[in-house]
Amino acid sequence: MLFSEFFAPTSKDIPSDAKIASHQLMLRAGMISQAASGIYYWLPLAVRVLEKIMKIICEEQDKIGANKVYFTTIQPAELWMESGRYDDYGKEMLRITDRKDGKFLYSPTNEEQATDVFRKYVKSYKGLPTMLYQIHWKFRDEIRPRFGVMRGREFLMKDGYSFASTFEEAEEIYKKVFKSYIRTFKRMGLTPIPVQADSGAIGGNMSHEFQILAQTGESTLYYDKKLLTASDEELMNIFAVTDEKYDPKTSPIPKNELMVSKGIEVGHIFYFGKKYSEPMNAFVLDKNGQKLYPEMGSYGIGVSRLIAAIIEAFHDERGIMWPEHVAPFDVTVLNLHTSNKDCVEICNKIYRALSESKEVLYDDREMSIGEKLGDADLIGIPWQIIVGEKNLSQGFVELKNRKTKEIIKLSVDEVIGRFIGK
Amino acid sequence: MLFSEFFAPTSKDIPSDAKIASHQLMLRAGMISQAASGIYYWLPLAVRVLEKIMKIICEEQDKIGANKVYFTTIQPAELWMESGRYDDYGKEMLRITDRKDGKFLYSPTNEEQATDVFRKYVKSYKGLPTMLYQIHWKFRDEIRPRFGVMRGREFLMKDGYSFASTFEEAEEIYKKVFKSYIRTFKRMGLTPIPVQADSGAIGGNMSHEFQILAQTGESTLYYDKKLLTASDEELMNIFAVTDEKYDPKTSPIPKNELMVSKGIEVGHIFYFGKKYSEPMNAFVLDKNGQKLYPEMGSYGIGVSRLIAAIIEAFHDERGIMWPEHVAPFDVTVLNLHTSNKDCVEICNKIYRALSESKEVLYDDREMSIGEKLGDADLIGIPWQIIVGEKNLSQGFVELKNRKTKEIIKLSVDEVIGRFIGK
Repeated sequence: MLFSEFFAPTSKDIPSDAKIASHQLMLRAGMISQAASGIYYWLPLAVRVLEKIMKIICEEQDKIGANKVYFTTIQPAELWMESGRYDDYGKEMLRITDRKDGKFLYSPTNEEQATDVFRKYVKSYKGLPTMLYQIHWKFRDEIRPRFGVMRGREFLMKDGYSFASTFEEAEEIYKKVFKSYIRTFKRMGLTPIPVQADSGAIGGNMSHEFQILAQTGESTLYYDKKLLTASDEELMNIFAVTDEKYDPKTSPIPKNELMVSKGIEVGHIFYFGKKYSEPMNAFVLDKNGQKLYPEMGSYGIGVSRLIAAIIEAFHDERGIMWPEHVAPFDVTVLNLHTSNKDCVEICNKIYRALSESKEVLYDDREMSIGEKLGDADLIGIPWQIIVGEKNLSQGFVELKNRKTKEIIKLSVDEVIGRFIGK
Repeated sequence: MLFSEFFAPTSKDIPSDAKIASHQLMLRAGMISQAASGIYYWLPLAVRVLEKIMKIICEEQDKIGANKVYFTTIQPAELWMESGRYDDYGKEMLRITDRKDGKFLYSPTNEEQATDVFRKYVKSYKGLPTMLYQIHWKFRDEIRPRFGVMRGREFLMKDGYSFASTFEEAEEIYKKVFKSYIRTFKRMGLTPIPVQADSGAIGGNMSHEFQILAQTGESTLYYDKKLLTASDEELMNIFAVTDEKYDPKTSPIPKNELMVSKGIEVGHIFYFGKKYSEPMNAFVLDKNGQKLYPEMGSYGIGVSRLIAAIIEAFHDERGIMWPEHVAPFDVTVLNLHTSNKDCVEICNKIYRALSESKEVLYDDREMSIGEKLGDADLIGIPWQIIVGEKNLSQGFVELKNRKTKEIIKLSVDEVIGRFIGK
């Protein structure tokens, strides 16, 4: 991708209304732009990151046999009257009337629709267990949207719903999703802390939040330091709670083994039994022809919020430092002297060679060296190949690691070999 | 993918409220399910086709340098007041009031938002030309939603917006998109007929519709038979109109060279000049520091509608016949005797071998041979590998081409070689 043709309107100005680093950096890197309070346009750099995140999520969902669907953004109020949540949900639900005076709403979550799909099609215990998921847009009419896409009104979420014959089967699925979420977040370069949670408005009686460690997080986490080194299998049983649930008097963890960190919630899983299947009359027939109401769970990942959370976890004073697997590009080539024939020729050579197997952003724009280096650090692509006339006249280019800031000098063939060999 | 774990609830019943083949077949194949009038759940088989279609569209958009973004589904009414369309749009616009009594709407199209993004970031003629596009959900509150996803209320659309310095540049972009759309539809196995169009409610003065030939189409097309054989370069200049614009008295095409066919509109492109840039005050400074209002165009593809259109174009009395590049799977393996050890072993062998490079649906369900063969023809995966105990005892399996219905007998190694060699 040539930067001159890429719509990434970077800016040096720190937006005054943006209070946290991710919000500032997403605005400055030209990733998002406010369309209305809590509603954002997603510009190309952000779209590329969203797609990386979605790909990881879908691959991991696939591995646990979840079936990908799209529920709808506009759903009939009737379904929520059946579940009993229509009146309870309050003003965060965006309620809509269509041209025929029908009552609708913009999905804040989709338990009712998942249950609706299930009851339409699954009639026998042989159809259990099953799991449906989607990655789709949702809307919650927050009274005070803030922190950019961290707490927006229109947001992208992965939400999954499971249906099981028994509590034991439901618990097994819950544990499978738990482990899958750990893998999902780790693949994004994150350190997820699963904390025992109350299930809040969605209801239920087994629930974990997945928190990402970040100094600017809204939650305070108290957890056993074993959590940072334990294998995925053990994580569910290690002590971790948010401040609301932490009581030093009853804490099972001695002080010298207790970690206290700030965190950002990026996922939440629930087991809630027959909370929806019973009132919505979603049942199958069991082996004996008797009605069986499935035990359900729901599993969410805040996809758009994840971008902000990743930036909160990985940035410095100069900009974003994307972990490898969610970076918008693998590597960027910076031509510091676009009017120098040799620089152009070498940049083209490197760009063409690397593009065969890597995603490359080639900064071919005519602007000052300082602006170009600044933009590269701001945007945060993991590797920068810096081509300037002085170094080039001595036969080399620079390779900079955005995170460690280490710069090494390499010949053109060496730098190509570094990436093509990978 | 094992069919036993895949959520594709097929049915033999012909739904009485579904009037056209694609609607019937999508319901029967378990691809969609109605959530409310004109609003559909998309089930896994349909999601796979949607994703194939989106991938082709994105690849072709990429080739012409369009930048992928997400505008928003909920947008502020203010923008539409600026453009002057808020009052004109009528009842098809889903108007929404948020908790703070702010006026919003569910995007029926995004010209205003594209213009808004442009004016925020592009300040100089050097930023021209540029093109933004998205694939996103839209809502039009049709008075009479019908034909399933063919004319739904909530639908998925690709919409692109271009900004140019001059009419000539705008025309050049228009022609580039025109050719790109032809390639896009051809990659989906379709024969697109570009017809000269009035630009309707969106306004403007250069416009083409892209129609897909299908007997059940809503439009009648009159076109020069050269259209079916001409190269992509020539298509724009060959006569083609819908019945509304056809007048036999003024037709430039002699009767023996005129084709008359039914068509389904799947794409629409517009040039509309400064219709939005001027009222919305979206300008850049030209070389002389003077205000320059860009010449705009918009370019749409009905993504969800395309699925229905493809089915209308490719089906028979038994079911769907997917063109290769948009098929939900490349090949399906049918185990006709799931209790026969040899059948299971051979099916597993074929499934594992083919899965290395193909997308395979392995029908491992316990059900009658007739149901299994019926489902395979209904779902319409291009190739069926049929494994039954009688054939297998003689050392072969059957390979069926869904479209031609040709069945050939092959050894297991031969059938694997057919797909792995490809």
